[in-house]
Amino acid sequence: MRAAVMRDWQLRVDDVPDPTPGPGQVLTKVLACGICGSDLHMLQHGAEVRSMMKEINGDAPPDPMSPKSFEPEHDTVMGHEFCCEVVDLGPGVENLKVGDVVVSMPVAFDAAGLHAVGYSNQYNGGYAELMVLNEMLGMKVPSGLPAHMAALTEPLAVGIHAVAKSRIAKGDAAIVIGAGPVGLACIAELRMQGIGPIVVADFSAKRRELAALLGADEVVDPRVETAIDAWKRIDGQKPLVIFEAVGVPGMIDQTMRIAPRHARVLVVGACMQSDHIFPMLGIGKELTIQFALGYEPHEFANSLTAIAEGKIDLSPWLTGTVPVDGVPQAFADLANPEQHAKILVVPGS
Amino acid sequence: MRAAVMRDWQLRVDDVPDPTPGPGQVLTKVLACGICGSDLHMLQHGAEVRSMMKEINGDAPPDPMSPKSFEPEHDTVMGHEFCCEVVDLGPGVENLKVGDVVVSMPVAFDAAGLHAVGYSNQYNGGYAELMVLNEMLGMKVPSGLPAHMAALTEPLAVGIHAVAKSRIAKGDAAIVIGAGPVGLACIAELRMQGIGPIVVADFSAKRRELAALLGADEVVDPRVETAIDAWKRIDGQKPLVIFEAVGVPGMIDQTMRIAPRHARVLVVGACMQSDHIFPMLGIGKELTIQFALGYEPHEFANSLTAIAEGKIDLSPWLTGTVPVDGVPQAFADLANPEQHAKILVVPGS
Repeated sequence: MRAAVMRDWQLRVDDVPDPTPGPGQVLTKVLACGICGSDLHMLQHGAEVRSMMKEINGDAPPDPMSPKSFEPEHDTVMGHEFCCEVVDLGPGVENLKVGDVVVSMPVAFDAAGLHAVGYSNQYNGGYAELMVLNEMLGMKVPSGLPAHMAALTEPLAVGIHAVAKSRIAKGDAAIVIGAGPVGLACIAELRMQGIGPIVVADFSAKRRELAALLGADEVVDPRVETAIDAWKRIDGQKPLVIFEAVGVPGMIDQTMRIAPRHARVLVVGACMQSDHIFPMLGIGKELTIQFALGYEPHEFANSLTAIAEGKIDLSPWLTGTVPVDGVPQAFADLANPEQHAKILVVPGS
Repeated sequence: MRAAVMRDWQLRVDDVPDPTPGPGQVLTKVLACGICGSDLHMLQHGAEVRSMMKEINGDAPPDPMSPKSFEPEHDTVMGHEFCCEVVDLGPGVENLKVGDVVVSMPVAFDAAGLHAVGYSNQYNGGYAELMVLNEMLGMKVPSGLPAHMAALTEPLAVGIHAVAKSRIAKGDAAIVIGAGPVGLACIAELRMQGIGPIVVADFSAKRRELAALLGADEVVDPRVETAIDAWKRIDGQKPLVIFEAVGVPGMIDQTMRIAPRHARVLVVGACMQSDHIFPMLGIGKELTIQFALGYEPHEFANSLTAIAEGKIDLSPWLTGTVPVDGVPQAFADLANPEQHAKILVVPGS
């Protein structure tokens, strides 16, 4: 099959062997798979992060409950935001049948343990024509829900989790710094939770437009007005949660500087380098900094339900589709925020 | 009166004019006043912190609800952990009388606004023979409670607040990094809340001994065993809150490195310099970092009650007394953790 392959931190399209489902697993064809910013980060900073984690963890044995990590010198097919159609059943599969359309948390398990689908040398992700999923984790997509919308289950779940972790409640206000895919997911969930006002800051006009379509009450260009000034202008009273969804060095410090007393900062932007802060800023204002990653199984399920019920129109989030052969160009295109938010890989498109 | 005076970031003992109570205020004589690590920090790093805060705040007007700051070129008499006896009444005082023994949050107010007692050019703190307090904030010390114990109301309140901010609950475990006065206050409050195990790390044998007397279940010398290893040895299961009560650069990073997944870090050590962190450590483990400062009025009141009721024996915390003229030497002595934890200034002693 065709697949976009990462090898030695380079991305290329190649023919690779078709995967084979084991016991309790199904073979699926990929209908749609979103390209995630984490995969762009992984190509750029993966080597650096690996050596940093190695330095930090020393000789400690890996956590047996964590999925096995990939070896960069071997092939890895990324893509963890997928919607697939079942095309063949492995031994012992009882509840899924050929033709079912499913989404799944990007995790696979077998006799060897857990694997992170999309960051594994064994289990390829959705930047390919076929992939293997565990029946037990497959969630059937309600009929009538298009595959390209169902593929947003995973990225929306990241926003659902971040918002839940922040413990934001009705009566609170939110600022979202950065309207990339993670920021947009937070905005959509905040809107679904009835939080307001939601103030969003992004340098890109296109991203601000998307933020407004997904539920932001106020969008600002930080060169013209800061998020905190905009919040003071339209509210300035409610308890405030600030979502840091940029993830580059200096952003946590900036967020701590603008935060009012007792604000909560939810860090969901994944800064992969060393960073600096002034602890006295946090102490003086008694800030809370909460870091968030991923989602829980129930949040993933709730995400699919929210999309299926049409609680919010996520279609503006989708800005393009490419075939498998177009993945490397799509990675390059995503660097321009004026052009794209979420590109879906649709094999055969 | 005699007073230990800070002027141009130097501490000296001098004769200064007696203070005069205004409307709603009382004149008191200081019975005992604890020397706080913040005052040592203020002498060492005050100039640095002021210029940092100036750079951060820019030309923003001061918060009208914050107490006015002192000018370093004028006299400041520090000391905010005091227990006093009323010796004269200002106009309109109705509820306090001469001879009452009181503690008070270190705040004063008058027609000019709020003042931080002990960090004010107008209202001297307790490193002096006399001080002025607002009647409204005075809490009567129950008869029979010695002044030197009542003077621990303020530092214990810092621990009560930090523990409350951490949202630690029965069934959780605690690590306290650093058994200086703030760490000791946290340990005492954790013990009063029935939290266990409480694991404490400090390089000083004397401090570890005090930590054990105040309620630590396990004390470790980090050169021999780390706090996290000790916790794993005796528990390793319960949700964990780590109290960072050291407050020097690098401690937040170290705490993030040792923290298990989903741990909460409560930063109560006041690091006054720039610091570094690795955000990916926080993200990967979904840590919460909560900064805490000071206390609320009800926590201050609860602190006095806890001491009066003898819920816990805080007497090991007190390691010495000095007269006002001995304050500069006491500041120097406190640099040696083997010698002292809390020195009380007792005028006339």
